Amino acid sequence: MKVAVIRKAHFNAAHRLHNPSWSDQKNQEVFGLCNNPNWHGHNYELEVKVSGDIDPETGMVIDLGWLADLIKQEIELRFDHKNLNLDTVEFRDLNPTAENMCVVIWQILRAKLPEILDLHIRLYETPRNFVEFPA
Amino acid sequence: MKVAVIRKAHFNAAHRLHNPSWSDQKNQEVFGLCNNPNWHGHNYELEVKVSGDIDPETGMVIDLGWLADLIKQEIELRFDHKNLNLDTVEFRDLNPTAENMCVVIWQILRAKLPEILDLHIRLYETPRNFVEFPA
Amino acid sequence: MKVAVIRKAHFNAAHRLHNPSWSDQKNQEVFGLCNNPNWHGHNYELEVKVSGDIDPETGMVIDLGWLADLIKQEIELRFDHKNLNLDTVEFRDLNPTAENMCVVIWQILRAKLPEILDLHIRLYETPRNFVEFPA
Amino acid sequence: MKVAVIRKAHFNAAHRLHNPSWSDQKNQEVFGLCNNPNWHGHNYELEVKVSGDIDPETGMVIDLGWLADLIKQEIELRFDHKNLNLDTVEFRDLNPTAENMCVVIWQILRAKLPEILDLHIRLYETPRNFVEFPA
Amino acid sequence: MKVAVIRKAHFNAAHRLHNPSWSDQKNQEVFGLCNNPNWHGHNYELEVKVSGDIDPETGMVIDLGWLADLIKQEIELRFDHKNLNLDTVEFRDLNPTAENMCVVIWQILRAKLPEILDLHIRLYETPRNFVEFPA
Amino acid sequence: MKVAVIRKAHFNAAHRLHNPSWSDQKNQEVFGLCNNPNWHGHNYELEVKVSGDIDPETGMVIDLGWLADLIKQEIELRFDHKNLNLDTVEFRDLNPTAENMCVVIWQILRAKLPEILDLHIRLYETPRNFVEFPA
Repeated sequence: MKVAVIRKAHFNAAHRLHNPSWSDQKNQEVFGLCNNPNWHGHNYELEVKVSGDIDPETGMVIDLGWLADLIKQEIELRFDHKNLNLDTVEFRDLNPTAENMCVVIWQILRAKLPEILDLHIRLYETPRNFVEFPA
Repeated sequence: MKVAVIRKAHFNAAHRLHNPSWSDQKNQEVFGLCNNPNWHGHNYELEVKVSGDIDPETGMVIDLGWLADLIKQEIELRFDHKNLNLDTVEFRDLNPTAENMCVVIWQILRAKLPEILDLHIRLYETPRNFVEFPA
Repeated sequence: MKVAVIRKAHFNAAHRLHNPSWSDQKNQEVFGLCNNPNWHGHNYELEVKVSGDIDPETGMVIDLGWLADLIKQEIELRFDHKNLNLDTVEFRDLNPTAENMCVVIWQILRAKLPEILDLHIRLYETPRNFVEFPA
Repeated sequence: MKVAVIRKAHFNAAHRLHNPSWSDQKNQEVFGLCNNPNWHGHNYELEVKVSGDIDPETGMVIDLGWLADLIKQEIELRFDHKNLNLDTVEFRDLNPTAENMCVVIWQILRAKLPEILDLHIRLYETPRNFVEFPA
Repeated sequence: MKVAVIRKAHFNAAHRLHNPSWSDQKNQEVFGLCNNPNWHGHNYELEVKVSGDIDPETGMVIDLGWLADLIKQEIELRFDHKNLNLDTVEFRDLNPTAENMCVVIWQILRAKLPEILDLHIRLYETPRNFVEFPA
Repeated sequence: MKVAVIRKAHFNAAHRLHNPSWSDQKNQEVFGLCNNPNWHGHNYELEVKVSGDIDPETGMVIDLGWLADLIKQEIELRFDHKNLNLDTVEFRDLNPTAENMCVVIWQILRAKLPEILDLHIRLYETPRNFVEFPA
C-alpha cells in the first residue's frame, strides 16, 4: 500500500543551450533563441514525488519538513538565482536542457533519500513545457 | 484501450496531527505546528481518477454526473466543513495526515465503484503539498 | 533512462453528445445538457507527453519546436474554432466525448511520431473534468 | 470602509461572432475563425465582485450562499450548455462577444442586487483573454 | 508615476463563524456549515499590494525581501496553523469572516508601512471565494 | 460604459539588478542574489489591459488579434530569450527591476495604441511577485 507524497519548490536561473563540439551555425539551427550567448532564463517549478509505505506511528511516508529542507539545501541553494552554465559544476560540461536538469536533480536527491523510497521528478521550464524523470 | 477520467472536487476541514500513544513533547517534535491542540485547517482539493474501457454506446468510461454525485455523497458530505478528528468516524482513531486521508478516500470510493474500473486518488492539502494513492 | 517531455496546447470548439441509434428521449436522459441540439462548447487544454532517451548530442528527447509545430498542424488547425460534429471527419460518426477525443488525438499524433518514442495524451474539457490515454 | 467580495462561477456555451448587416466576406475579415457558421465554444469563467460595508452583526458584506445561488439562477441556468446566439434572448440580436456578454451579465445581476452594493464583473473567455465591466 | 508591487503569501488556519449575541438556531441559519462548533479550516492565500513611486536609485518601490519578511513576521507567524477564534487576540471578539480578516490584515500591515505607500489586501478563503480591502 | 479587455502574453529573459554608481558591496547588500554578475532569469507573464467603449458594429473594444500581434511585435520579439541588460536598449542604462520593466512596457505600448483607449500593465516576475502600472 504505497502512497506518493509530492512537494513543490521553486528556483529561477539563467542558462544557454549549447553544444561546444558544434559550429555556431549548427548550435543556432538546433537551439534557436535558446542558444543566445548572452543567456536567457526561467522560473523553474519543481515537483519532488517520494513514494513508500505509510509509517503507522506517524501516518506519514516521509517528514515533509525534512523533505522541504532537503530540497532547499540540495536544489534551491545550488541553482536559485544562478547561471547554470557558469555557476554550477553540474552543468559546466552538460547542456542545461530541462531533460538533463531533471535527471541531475533526480540523481542529487536520490543519493540523499533512503533506498526504500521511490523518487520521481517533474520540472516545469515554462508553464507550457515540462519534463519528468523517470518517464 | 483503457482511458482515465478525472473529476476534481473540493472540501475544507479542520484537523490536528497527533499520536495519543506519544507524550505531548514527542507529538510536538514530530508534528510541529500541525499538532496545535486547538486545530488548524485546509482547503482540500481532490482528484478522483477512474480508468476503464470506453463504452461504445455512450463514448464514455463512466457517467461523469454519476461520479460527481458519488463524490458529493460519499466524500464532500462526510468531510466538508468538519473537524476530521472530532466529527468523523474514519479519523477518530486514525491520524488525519494527507496520506491516511488519501487511502481512506480511496477505500470509500473503491467500495462503491464497479470492480472492472481502476481507481486512483490525488489529494492536495495545500497548493504545494499533495499525495497520491496508489503510488 | 527515459525522460518524458510534456507540451501544452489549446483549442476551443463546439460539440454535441448524441447517439443517432437512440431515441431523443434516451439521448436526453444519458447526455443531459450535453445533448443540446444547438451545441455547446469548451476550451480544450491539451497535454502531449512524449517519452524516450535523451539524445546526448542535444540533451533533448525531442525538438520542442518540432513537437509544438506538429501539434499546431495536426490538432489545432483541425479542431480549433470548429464544430466537432459538423466540421471534422473524425467525429462525423463518432461521439465527441472527451474520452473519444483523447484516443483520436493519440492516434493522429502516434502516426506522426517516431516509433521509438512513447506517447500519452491528457485532455481537459473543463478545469474540473479531464481524461488521459493510455490510462 | 468598503470591502469587496468575489465569487467565481463557471459555464460553457457555443457561440458565433457575426454582424448580420455585413456581407459574409466582411464578417470573415473582422471575426475570422470566430465567424464559423457552425459555431465554436468556450468554458467561461466568471468572477462576480460585490462591494459594500461589512454588516457588524454578521461580519459579512453579503451572504455568499445567497450570491452563489443568484449567480446559479440568473447566469448559469441561462447560459450553461447553451448556444448563445440561438438559445438565449439576450444574444439573439446582440453579438455575443466577451465584451457584450460582460455588460449583459452585469445588467442582469445589477437588477437583482441591493442598490447600496457596487458590482463589477470579470469574464474569462479563454485562459489568455478576459474582460471586465466597469473598466 | 506610481507602480504597485504585489507579494503573495500563504497561511492555513481553523475558524468558526459565530455571533455570541445570537441563539444557536440563528447562528446555524445565518452561518450554516461555517458555524460548526468543532471548527473547520482553510488554506488562506494572501496578496499584499503596496503602491508608490519608483526609487530611482534602486528601481524599486519597496524592498521585496523586507516586505516578504514583514508579512512573515506580522501575518504568517500570527495566523498560520492557528485556531483564529481561540489562538489570536484579533478574533477573540471579532467574527473571523474573510471580510473581517481582510480588514484586520490591512490594519496590521498599514501600521508597519511608510505612510507614503498605499496598501491593498486581497485574501482568498477558497479558490472560488475571495475578498479585497479597500474595495 | 467602458469595458476592459485583457490579453495575456509570455516571455522569458535573463537579467541582473545592479546600480553602476554603487560599490559592489552596496549592490550586493541591496539586490542580494539578484545582483549575481553571471545573471539569473525569469518567465515573465504579461497582462495587457486596454479599456474603452464597445464598438456597436463589432461588439468589441479592440481587435484582439491586432492586440496580440502588437504585443508579439513590440514586446515578445524585443525581450523574449534576451539578456535584458546586454541585449536591449531599454535596459542598457536602466535597472531591469519588475517595476521599471512594467513602466517601459507601458510606454512602448502606449505609443502604439489609439489615445482614446486606456492602458494598464501587469507583469509577473515569479508566480509570487508581480507589479502593475499605473498603480
